[in-house]
Amino acid sequence: MMSEKYVYLFHEGNASMNELLGRKGANLAEMSALGLPVPPGFTITTSACRRFYDEGKTIHPDIVRDIYHALHTLEETSGKRFGHPSNPLLVSVRSGSSTSMPGMMDTILNLGLNDYTVAALIKHKENKHFAYDSYRRFIQMFSSIVLGINDSLFEDELEKVKRQANVKQDSQLTPDHLLDLILIYKEIVLKETGHKFPQDPKQQLLAAIGAVFDSWYNPRATFYRRIHKIPDHIGTAVTIQQMVFGNLGSNSGTGIAFTRHPSTGENELFGEFMFNAQGEDIVAGIRTPQPMTVLKERLPETFDQFDKIACNLEKHYRDVQDIEFTVEEGDLYVLQTRSAKRTAEANIKIAVDMANEGVIGREEAIMRVDPAAIAPLMQHTIDPTAELNVIGKGLDASSGAATGIIVFDAEEAERQHRTGHSVILVRQETTPEDIHGILASAGVLTTRGGVTSHAAVVARDLGTPSVVGCESFKVDMEQRELHTDTVILKEGDIITICGSTGRVILGEVPLVPPKFSKEFCTLLEWANEFKTMRVYSSVNTPQEAELARKMGAEGVGLCRTELMFMDPERLPRVTRMILARNQRERKKALNELIPMQKYDFHGIFRAMAGKQVTIRLIDPPLHEFLPNPSALALELERARVAGDTKLIEEKEALQQRIEMLHELNPSFGHRGCRIGITYPEIYEIQTRAIAEAALELKAEGLEVYPRIIVPLVSDWREMKKVRETVEETLQQVFSIYRDRIDVPIGVFIELPRACMTADKIAQYADFITFGTNDLTQSAYGFSRDDAEGKYLAYYLDNNILPENPFVYLDTEGVGRLIEIAMEQGRKNKPNLKTGVCGEHTSEKDSVLFLQNVGMNFISSVPQRIPSARIAAAQAAIRTRLRL
Amino acid sequence: MMSEKYVYLFHEGNASMNELLGRKGANLAEMSALGLPVPPGFTITTSACRRFYDEGKTIHPDIVRDIYHALHTLEETSGKRFGHPSNPLLVSVRSGSSTSMPGMMDTILNLGLNDYTVAALIKHKENKHFAYDSYRRFIQMFSSIVLGINDSLFEDELEKVKRQANVKQDSQLTPDHLLDLILIYKEIVLKETGHKFPQDPKQQLLAAIGAVFDSWYNPRATFYRRIHKIPDHIGTAVTIQQMVFGNLGSNSGTGIAFTRHPSTGENELFGEFMFNAQGEDIVAGIRTPQPMTVLKERLPETFDQFDKIACNLEKHYRDVQDIEFTVEEGDLYVLQTRSAKRTAEANIKIAVDMANEGVIGREEAIMRVDPAAIAPLMQHTIDPTAELNVIGKGLDASSGAATGIIVFDAEEAERQHRTGHSVILVRQETTPEDIHGILASAGVLTTRGGVTSHAAVVARDLGTPSVVGCESFKVDMEQRELHTDTVILKEGDIITICGSTGRVILGEVPLVPPKFSKEFCTLLEWANEFKTMRVYSSVNTPQEAELARKMGAEGVGLCRTELMFMDPERLPRVTRMILARNQRERKKALNELIPMQKYDFHGIFRAMAGKQVTIRLIDPPLHEFLPNPSALALELERARVAGDTKLIEEKEALQQRIEMLHELNPSFGHRGCRIGITYPEIYEIQTRAIAEAALELKAEGLEVYPRIIVPLVSDWREMKKVRETVEETLQQVFSIYRDRIDVPIGVFIELPRACMTADKIAQYADFITFGTNDLTQSAYGFSRDDAEGKYLAYYLDNNILPENPFVYLDTEGVGRLIEIAMEQGRKNKPNLKTGVCGEHTSEKDSVLFLQNVGMNFISSVPQRIPSARIAAAQAAIRTRLRL
Repeated sequence: MMSEKYVYLFHEGNASMNELLGRKGANLAEMSALGLPVPPGFTITTSACRRFYDEGKTIHPDIVRDIYHALHTLEETSGKRFGHPSNPLLVSVRSGSSTSMPGMMDTILNLGLNDYTVAALIKHKENKHFAYDSYRRFIQMFSSIVLGINDSLFEDELEKVKRQANVKQDSQLTPDHLLDLILIYKEIVLKETGHKFPQDPKQQLLAAIGAVFDSWYNPRATFYRRIHKIPDHIGTAVTIQQMVFGNLGSNSGTGIAFTRHPSTGENELFGEFMFNAQGEDIVAGIRTPQPMTVLKERLPETFDQFDKIACNLEKHYRDVQDIEFTVEEGDLYVLQTRSAKRTAEANIKIAVDMANEGVIGREEAIMRVDPAAIAPLMQHTIDPTAELNVIGKGLDASSGAATGIIVFDAEEAERQHRTGHSVILVRQETTPEDIHGILASAGVLTTRGGVTSHAAVVARDLGTPSVVGCESFKVDMEQRELHTDTVILKEGDIITICGSTGRVILGEVPLVPPKFSKEFCTLLEWANEFKTMRVYSSVNTPQEAELARKMGAEGVGLCRTELMFMDPERLPRVTRMILARNQRERKKALNELIPMQKYDFHGIFRAMAGKQVTIRLIDPPLHEFLPNPSALALELERARVAGDTKLIEEKEALQQRIEMLHELNPSFGHRGCRIGITYPEIYEIQTRAIAEAALELKAEGLEVYPRIIVPLVSDWREMKKVRETVEETLQQVFSIYRDRIDVPIGVFIELPRACMTADKIAQYADFITFGTNDLTQSAYGFSRDDAEGKYLAYYLDNNILPENPFVYLDTEGVGRLIEIAMEQGRKNKPNLKTGVCGEHTSEKDSVLFLQNVGMNFISSVPQRIPSARIAAAQAAIRTRLRL
Repeated sequence: MMSEKYVYLFHEGNASMNELLGRKGANLAEMSALGLPVPPGFTITTSACRRFYDEGKTIHPDIVRDIYHALHTLEETSGKRFGHPSNPLLVSVRSGSSTSMPGMMDTILNLGLNDYTVAALIKHKENKHFAYDSYRRFIQMFSSIVLGINDSLFEDELEKVKRQANVKQDSQLTPDHLLDLILIYKEIVLKETGHKFPQDPKQQLLAAIGAVFDSWYNPRATFYRRIHKIPDHIGTAVTIQQMVFGNLGSNSGTGIAFTRHPSTGENELFGEFMFNAQGEDIVAGIRTPQPMTVLKERLPETFDQFDKIACNLEKHYRDVQDIEFTVEEGDLYVLQTRSAKRTAEANIKIAVDMANEGVIGREEAIMRVDPAAIAPLMQHTIDPTAELNVIGKGLDASSGAATGIIVFDAEEAERQHRTGHSVILVRQETTPEDIHGILASAGVLTTRGGVTSHAAVVARDLGTPSVVGCESFKVDMEQRELHTDTVILKEGDIITICGSTGRVILGEVPLVPPKFSKEFCTLLEWANEFKTMRVYSSVNTPQEAELARKMGAEGVGLCRTELMFMDPERLPRVTRMILARNQRERKKALNELIPMQKYDFHGIFRAMAGKQVTIRLIDPPLHEFLPNPSALALELERARVAGDTKLIEEKEALQQRIEMLHELNPSFGHRGCRIGITYPEIYEIQTRAIAEAALELKAEGLEVYPRIIVPLVSDWREMKKVRETVEETLQQVFSIYRDRIDVPIGVFIELPRACMTADKIAQYADFITFGTNDLTQSAYGFSRDDAEGKYLAYYLDNNILPENPFVYLDTEGVGRLIEIAMEQGRKNKPNLKTGVCGEHTSEKDSVLFLQNVGMNFISSVPQRIPSARIAAAQAAIRTRLRL
């Protein structure tokens, strides 16, 4: 058996060896291979790191031997020797995993310095200050990172010396001061560890490598991995590279540059440079770096050389690069290159530009845009021309602007939301118990907490605009008031928050819808070329249908009808319908609702002229349409005080009915088609409104394609029964209107039993739509409302569940149920059309799964249509290219 | 193609042609073949009935031809002619489907009589009264059944004539009176139908046959079929048989006899006989029939002949027969035989006796006992020696006796049940909304309603003792009092009800446990010989474990631990545990519970010494252990009035905690292993109590086999996590006790997702138990609590669901999920033991399914263990014999 290779010289590797060499190591190897001026070095593999842990945190002698061997080669290449008293080799030691991971040990510079080599450095560079300062820094860095000595011990001594020398800046210290410090530092090391500061460079090197490996499991790194779902076992590589110095005077310096602008995506070199400095000086922020133009002005040749290299690197990697480089006495060295982090806007522009430049294909341009990352581009923003009465300012926690009425708790948020209000949830701080309230809110405002507080994290996750930590405000829960510096606001007052700037504004403010850049529109057009699933929208109102069409929806995949009942004007009629003592009374109340529902359907059909509109018959339990019991109790109390017998009677009847309709588990109760079956007149009336609206518009010459879908079916007999009700009603309408229209009737599959028996259900269904939100709920037995506030957060934090299944489709459980349903459903109807509604339809991996099982369509909320289009295109591309 | 045979002469059929000839026709054919004295006749098939409906309710001419052909043969056999003026053939026409079905038209006697043939009858039988009365009855019967004329028109005229004649009994009317009546009857027919009463016997016959067919779909028959799940399409047969007359004087008569006693099962001929009477006279109950001994005394030869026939029929059919027979002037005719209906006790005795007699095998004896029908034998009854203070009497709606505290609504019933009380739900009448209360009650008492009222039906279904319609009682809901004739009882007072006698008794009454007959014990022993699945019991307490063992449980399949927390003495500690502000406080409160839990486990282990005891870690949501919010609000109010600040604080803390724990859908919320994972200390403490109890008994030399099962698992990671917690705790206990014991850890599969991913879950589970109640709930998305009170009754009544899936396992949906889970679970562990807990484990078809998918065990409540044992034996027999 050939023994595994644990150490790679730069010229032995390349960019594809990311997993083995880490991203940094692989890119240095690639650049070496390209002939770029990279200081020589070598990389110890991630595999060595795993072995380090397997063998009780020791570096195996075989690996040590390989390291020394590579070091020897490095000595030969550089003509310097490690620890040589007159021509010493100095190196940097850096960690680097296959995915960028802050939290690990990053860099130790100047390793190889000791009491002897520092003298050589003085001689060689003719710069005593530089040499002693380097040594001083190395001892401090090595001691705190590798030896684990508290860094403040060194910082305190440094401050003491500066005080004694009466100087402000490190750079003002004399070489003698620095020499004193070196002695003091070495004393600290002796005292803290019981050993002298290691003078042997090889000992220094092995200790530093061990420290990098060790940093893989430090708490910050472990936490970061958990959050970002990076597996623990992959480990980090270590790169050893010959030092170059940007701090050797005015011909030296260090810089970081982007090959295109990382915020706008403009195709221009963008970066910062600092003369006479090392990389860490830019990071530490002691001096302010200057724009790249200073390099162009003062060292034009070096600049041109860099510009060319940058250009080539971008071409080579076919992506915008973020390049670190150093100029040592006029000589350019490239120290690192990587794909540049960029804003969503920039990312889209760059992808489209590069495709137009022919650098990448259109497919690749699409693949580069994360559907989840474009959510902020969909947010409304405040009209820049509007005059604003800003009453406070907090932290910009989640972008976008929202206007709504103030509510002070989650229950009220839900209640107001249900009756069609846009609400801003205002809390001192939010807790997991508030989730259902946040879900119901257009925006969230807290008076405490930072950008990583609960409210901020959840709001960003949901794409809900949010301002947090608005500390000049005070919430008075007793009085239900919000005290600001200038006004006292009551529950129900209107405010606007701007999550992009942290402003809180009194009253309603004109918002402007998101404007898509030219490139974004292009990208979305390209997405349409590649995707094979249709992208429909889930809407509640004609307004949403219009928005959906603008966003590129190819029809309505789910038109909910319950909001039509929630309209404050209609609600009294709905209440009458629910309170009806018999079918006749109920029909009468329902009949009054027909014109109103028709009005809504007219609007939606018009907005979607020429496209399918799939309407879901009523789904929620009836008690959702009735007033909140505690509110009603209050009203009843008032009526009693007023002695209004008629009102008392009315309220008491309502109260009784609410008690009768009360359910222990309403999400699994009397809802969906169970309502349509036990009260067929409700579905009849809805069908009537749909058919009449469609025929009336058809008579006007409009192309209308209505479809009906039946919610919460668990058995084929339910589907058969509802289908009969719907078809009979359609026939009645057709004969009255002396015209007809095709209305396919589909089934909403949201229950595991419907999946298992989809063959039978499909006999009565013209198409299948999976409701993956509810299917996830029933498959897991998780009531979503309860889970998110109670145990789901704990599960995710503690890796009991790797993902939130309401966000990422659970393919092995819920997905398997869907697959079974598809097989069953298509057994006798091979061409049965199937699709999915739910939050999963804009999440890329979920959409890929849906593509692979053969879905025909997905349906998203209007704001997520662009994400869904991109996700669908990516899924088609990945499936075709087996990515 | 041979044309189908629609008409069978008796000698052309046999008993196996039940489906085609109906039960009655097939048995008559069989008896003819056996050479018994059966009046000749023929049967028109059920297939003819189906064709009758297919062809717009007409009898096809081909079938008419076949009927006439059979009639001709009958004429030849009997030497009589249909409609012949001097020697007329008279026949009876009877309906008869393959399963006995009240509600259909039963019998028309004397068909063939008309104005001419009646004269011949007079002559032939020399009995004018008999002949005219026969004709009068025939017109009335035919007119009301076949012609659809309201029977009261005839009855009124009969009454009028009797008044005029000043007689009380029909038999006292003179032939002249009867002749008058015949004329009046014919007038009625003419007036009501516009046609004369049909004089043509063939016309009478075809009309009667059509009427039988027609009666298949009358509302009563349709309703009966729906209730008894008899398919609509099978249709009824019609049997035409030559009349014999038991009403020709003192040498004639009619009787019904059972070959064994239908109530006790004693092996003795048991029956009734009536001289000078027709079958309908016995049914009408005008005269009281006499015991069979009168026949023996007065016509000993005929009796002996009958006794021999009865004996042979029982042997031939290998079952107790219920035989109808007629003696016409000394000649014995057998008119019908069928398997006798009998009590559950008799059925068991007969089955065991017959097996012991060698008439049937033991397998068949087991197959003859319906597991559902023996439920009444499991009920406690009132100690016959006890002195009782009977305070009222209602209807005996559901057998068995129960003692408990009075509660007046379903919520209170649940609440008191949860805290361990036995409750009697007392209502004016119950509604579907009360179901959860009935489920929680030991007995149900209503002041209104009959034995088919809601309370009665539900109670019988659940096997809950119930007295209904106790009309001398009055429920005062305002005062929450029960007013009886003698005392006023308050909520919480103790009463006893006896559902077998309808008595209501004040206070607690000694109950005696059910006593099993010798034969029942034998049958259960035989069941053990045949069954292959183990039958465990589901218990809550040591007392239940003892009962279960007596009932023959082979171990405990599910020991719930929540009731141990509900004990009124322990509840305060549980509350403290829930209110704990941190893990330390929680552990402290939990530690105090250990000795109490251990005490219970000791009891259960002792009761089940030598057998497995599977203990489920805590399952319900924590808020179930806290007081009811409205009760708490009241207590808080009282504390405020009293100004007790400490108490106020305490109650307010409790109130806050309750609000925090409140869930929208608690059945799908924070419960099961979700509690054990988020509060691991709870499962730790339970494990500790189990292990300590087991080791302590082991030290005493007892054989203890504890097992632990983890509820509501949806993902393998949950199972892994809990397993780690349990195993670590076990190790700690083992090292403290310096001893160890094997504790297998299994998974409760109650969620669809667990089924789909059972392969992964099984890696961490030593066995699988399916909770089919909860699995049904989540697969259908039916919250059981809500469904039963809201839409499930509607679904069953309207055939939206053919069965209640909580009673009959839904094999195509829930069953398919179980099959998938079994396949998955055994993929890598082929010997993985699996079983089922839930109500389905004593329902025979469900148990057969479980046997067929390869379950190793089922677990029932103690009272259902005998049913489960029989069901398991039947399933094994059916599987082996492919029944």
